[in-house]
Formats: sequence, structure tokens, C-alpha cells
Amino acid sequence: MSPAQRHPTMADVAERAGVSPSTVSRTLRGLTSVSADVRVRVEQAARELNFAVSRQAASLVTGKTGVVAVLVPTLNSWFMGSALSSLGPLLRAAGMELNVYVIPDMAERTSFFEHLPARRNADALLVFGFDLTDEETARLDDLGMPVIYVSQHAKGRPSVYVDDVAGGCKATRHLLNLGHRRIAFVPTAGATGFTFSSRERLLGYRQALTEAGIPLDDELVVTMSVEDKRGLAAGIGALLSLREPPTAVFAEQDELAVAVVHTLRAARIQVPERMSVIGFDDHQIAEWFDLSTVAQSPSDMGRVAGELALKLIDDPEADRTRHVVLPIHLIPRATTAPPAPTGDVVTEAGM
Amino acid sequence: MSPAQRHPTMADVAERAGVSPSTVSRTLRGLTSVSADVRVRVEQAARELNFAVSRQAASLVTGKTGVVAVLVPTLNSWFMGSALSSLGPLLRAAGMELNVYVIPDMAERTSFFEHLPARRNADALLVFGFDLTDEETARLDDLGMPVIYVSQHAKGRPSVYVDDVAGGCKATRHLLNLGHRRIAFVPTAGATGFTFSSRERLLGYRQALTEAGIPLDDELVVTMSVEDKRGLAAGIGALLSLREPPTAVFAEQDELAVAVVHTLRAARIQVPERMSVIGFDDHQIAEWFDLSTVAQSPSDMGRVAGELALKLIDDPEADRTRHVVLPIHLIPRATTAPPAPTGDVVTEAGM
Repeated sequence: MSPAQRHPTMADVAERAGVSPSTVSRTLRGLTSVSADVRVRVEQAARELNFAVSRQAASLVTGKTGVVAVLVPTLNSWFMGSALSSLGPLLRAAGMELNVYVIPDMAERTSFFEHLPARRNADALLVFGFDLTDEETARLDDLGMPVIYVSQHAKGRPSVYVDDVAGGCKATRHLLNLGHRRIAFVPTAGATGFTFSSRERLLGYRQALTEAGIPLDDELVVTMSVEDKRGLAAGIGALLSLREPPTAVFAEQDELAVAVVHTLRAARIQVPERMSVIGFDDHQIAEWFDLSTVAQSPSDMGRVAGELALKLIDDPEADRTRHVVLPIHLIPRATTAPPAPTGDVVTEAGM
Repeated sequence: MSPAQRHPTMADVAERAGVSPSTVSRTLRGLTSVSADVRVRVEQAARELNFAVSRQAASLVTGKTGVVAVLVPTLNSWFMGSALSSLGPLLRAAGMELNVYVIPDMAERTSFFEHLPARRNADALLVFGFDLTDEETARLDDLGMPVIYVSQHAKGRPSVYVDDVAGGCKATRHLLNLGHRRIAFVPTAGATGFTFSSRERLLGYRQALTEAGIPLDDELVVTMSVEDKRGLAAGIGALLSLREPPTAVFAEQDELAVAVVHTLRAARIQVPERMSVIGFDDHQIAEWFDLSTVAQSPSDMGRVAGELALKLIDDPEADRTRHVVLPIHLIPRATTAPPAPTGDVVTEAGM
């Protein structure tokens, strides 16, 4: 194969197919504005020439990069894995590439917002579950591309999320309705403080308690981390050594809730007899462990966010302030029950 | 801000910093061949001009895309999440972007190998845990860029993995050494058959049994999926209804092992008293659940694979047949124990 054959250009494909280079680009990017007849001709010409789309070449023709970038705090979570596993194939079907920026700590984050590497290297940015400062949000406004907030919301900017306040409220109300009055809230201990979602779920927890006329008690809010087994035991210990310990725990996410259940059971405290536990997510492990939880679908969230990104890229007239709020619902399972009657000592035999 | 100011070029930065455009490109991509003095001048000039690196512009200067692509079957797994969470920041530190192709099913896979979208849009490709056909491997050889095989190995091609055969052997030997003679192997049921790793772990399991003079019994190999609770119960049921049921289960990965433990306990079969269970991974949940396992580090794997990719991109003379084999080790915990003496009925009171 000669060098000339090795790198055919988009113009070569256009000539062979009898269309313009811009039509070749639109076709090979999978845009729907191309007729079926033209698509067949272009794809055949591209195949005959063994032509691979170069983003560089396509970009010079269309002014688009063909890339959607996502900014994530980690990839090592069920939530992110599920969301990107639906987003990835959706973008591929639209002929777009998926670019991932993993920003695990504050130093990386500062560097990202200083240099904004996504700038001019993507057609849209999806920001997943960051608790952004006003300065950071303003900086993203200057990117010159649609920025979609996912699993969080920003006023006046496209956002896809669940109502975490309502979710926190639902979980807490379920415990209240079972008769619990001392209810702990366990957010994830993170390097950068509470996440957007955990702050909203805390608000929901407080709202439900206030509605029920129960005074808030900061001693009942204890951060824990699934990665720190000793810290988990210490956190549970802090709750159990209160003058009035809780009879129920609302853990901010299912993995943490399962760890709480496991820590309690290892300490011979029966769940749900002596302590009810509810999570948030409806993670796969929630089903195995028969964990009561509030279900959300990160897979749907990734899909809807991807569809919104494609729409905003293709249609400059589209509404850029649209908020899409996805449903959540309570899934009562076997880790929540009414509190034991006061004075009733539940022994292990009662398990 | 005028349009001219909005899009300063690399040449503008070069002029202001008093260096060549190619030096600007190398500096902003973070290559180490640039002196500290030049780096400071270029970064200051770029900041003063509010210059953002455009891959298109950089590519025209360097012939490189500044992108490393990864091909993954899913992002929704602990393994992939951990590996990419170390790979992402490593690439960012080197000034490279991370492009992710999620190929969840055979149709997508056929399409990927037909069109090879990574072609000319990346400087290297990392292929994670696919069980490729010879045709697919040959097709990747034609990409014209370094292709690194991760969590699998390909003869004569750069590969980063653990010795899954040895790992399967270690897990099985631990059970044999405890006195077990009937040992089941549980691979993950996947849409595309056994993965590369599960086939190798099965080989290790068979090797250890053969070494110990124990005949192989295909009835002891039962696929299960963590996503299918009913199938899990049916799989466990198949093992328990054998004429000679196993006294130990080696599950191919920790999440599956935890699901097996949970399913057994729900059926009031004590682990490890009545059934030993060992996993593979040393996933975070293995520690919570005190699960015996074989530890590997996907985080190290992502890092080492990324370093190898950067080396092969920068040094065309580097050895392209290098295999890096990362360590694994047995972590004995509380789900493995000697089998109950024959005829000894272990009741729940003995738990």
C-alpha cells in the first residue's frame, strides 16, 4: 500500500461519493440530517478507500471536534460506572467520542479549572456530581460549549438529576412512619467535604424531621467511609455511645449502608430488630442484602444527559436552561422495621 | 474581547515566549524533554494570551493526537473503575487526554472492529480484558499505533496483567491444603462467554486439582452472575443437589463470591463451617465481609499500562513485545476453613 493510499483524505472520499467534504464529515459522524441514499454512497466510498475519520480532518471541515467530554471525581463508583456505561454506547451510536477527565483531588481540580483542557477539544462537557464553587461554574460558562450538570443542578444551566432533597425526605419519612424518633444520618466522608448529593439528602433528612416536630441533633450526623473499616466502627460507636442512641440509620448511599449493616451485625446488634438501616441508590448489592433504599437510575441519568448534550450541540436554538428531574422511589426491604418497644431486650435468639 | 483575542494560536504563544511552535506544543503536552526555564516562559505566555491547547492545532504541529484511547467491555465494574481511576490522572499529568470506548455487546464489538474509530484519533490504544479473536488482534496490529493489552496478554505484543493461572492455582491449593476434595469453580456468566481471566483462572483451578491427584468433574463448574439473584440460587442449588456436593467454592471474583456467601447463608448453610468460599480480586467488599481471596491491584495495572503507553508513544525504539506481570497473593480470611468431619452435622447453634 502506497503512502498516498494509506492516508486518503475526506476530500478523496467526497470525490468518490460525489458529495461535498462537509457531507462526508456529517455522514461519518452519524448525523441524522444526511439522507439514506447519500449515507450508503459515502460509507461505501470510505470503505473502498479504507478511510478512517480523523478528528483533525473532520474538525477543520465542521468546526466541531466530535468529542463529548465528561468531568468526574472518580470512575471507581457504581454510580459513575453505571452512568458512563449507558453514555458511552449512546455517544458511539451518534458518531461521537467520549473523553473522560478524572479529577480525584483538590490539586487536580484547581489545575483543571485553571487550564480547562476540555476547551476547544470537545463540543460539550458533562460535569458529574461536583460541588462546584460559583467561580468554577462561571469559569465553565466561558468554555464556549454546552456544559451539562449531571447528578447536580446549576441555576439557569442545563441539568439532569434526581431530587435528592425529596429522596432524603422519603427515606427519613419511611423511618418516621415506622415509629422511629431518633434517626441518624450518615454521609460519606470525602476529601473535599460533602458532595452536592449528600448535602441535599441531609436537607431532606432535616426537612422530614422538622415536619414531624422532631428537634435536629447534630450528634446524629456522623460521616463514615466505606474505605475505612476502623472509622466505620468508630462512627457506629459514636452513635451507640450517645445518651439517647438512634434506633435507625439513614446512610447516604447503599454501599455505605451495607457496610453499616455489616458493622452492626459484627457487633451483634441485630438489623432491623435493634437498628433499622436504609440506604440510597438501589445499587445491585441492595437487592442481595435485602436493603431498604431509595432507588435512582444512574444508567438513565447518563443516557438522558447524553441525549441532552447531543441536542444542545446540534441545535444552538435549544433551551439551555432546561432541568430534567428523574424519578426516585422508596424500596422498602428487610433492613427497616418498627423500633423495639422500650425496655424490650432483643437477644440474638430472636434473630 | 475581540475574536482575534478569543482564539490565539500556538504561533502567538511561541512568538511571545520566544520559542518554536513545536516547543509550545511539547511544553503544553507536559513532555519532559522541555527545560524548566522554557516551560515557565511558555506557560506564562499561554496564560497571558488565555490560550487553550487545541488538539487539532497541536496535532498539525506534532503529528500526534495527544489522546490515549481505551477499549473496555464495561465501565460498570470495580476492576475497570479502579484501573481507569489511576490511569486518568496519570495521563493528565502527562498532558494527554483519555478517550473511552465502551463496547458492551457483540454487535457494538463487530462495529468497532469494522470501523476502528480509534484510528488516527489516538496515539495509543489500551485494550482491557477482552477475549479477542486472532482476526481482531490482527486488525489492531494494523492501527499504526502502540496497542497495549491489559488484564490479558497477546503473544509478541505489549501486555500488562496478573498471572491468572497461578492465581486460580493458589486459591484452589489453599482449599486443598485445608482438606477439601470436592471444590466447585464459579465463573461469571457473561454475554460473550468466559472472559480471558475466567478461562485462565479455570485452568489454574484444574491444574491444582490435577497436581493433587483429584479427577476433574465438569458438574462442579457452574456459571453464575451477580446480576441474577434467581440464577445464583439455582446455581447453588445445582451444586447442593449433586450426589457428592462440594465442600468449598472458588468464585472467579469477589462480588460473585460475596453473593455466593449471601445466598448460602440465606439458605442457612453456614460459611465456612459447611461450605468454604474464596474469591479473587481483594475488592473493598472482601475486607468488609472477611472474604478469603486472591489479591490483585487494578489500580497498579492501570498505572503501569499508562506508563507503558506513554513510553511506547515517545520512544519508537522501545521494546514492543514486553510483558509486565504484576504480583498476586492469597489473602486468607474468615470464609475458608477445613471441611466439617464427614457425618458431623453442623447446626445453626454452632454458628
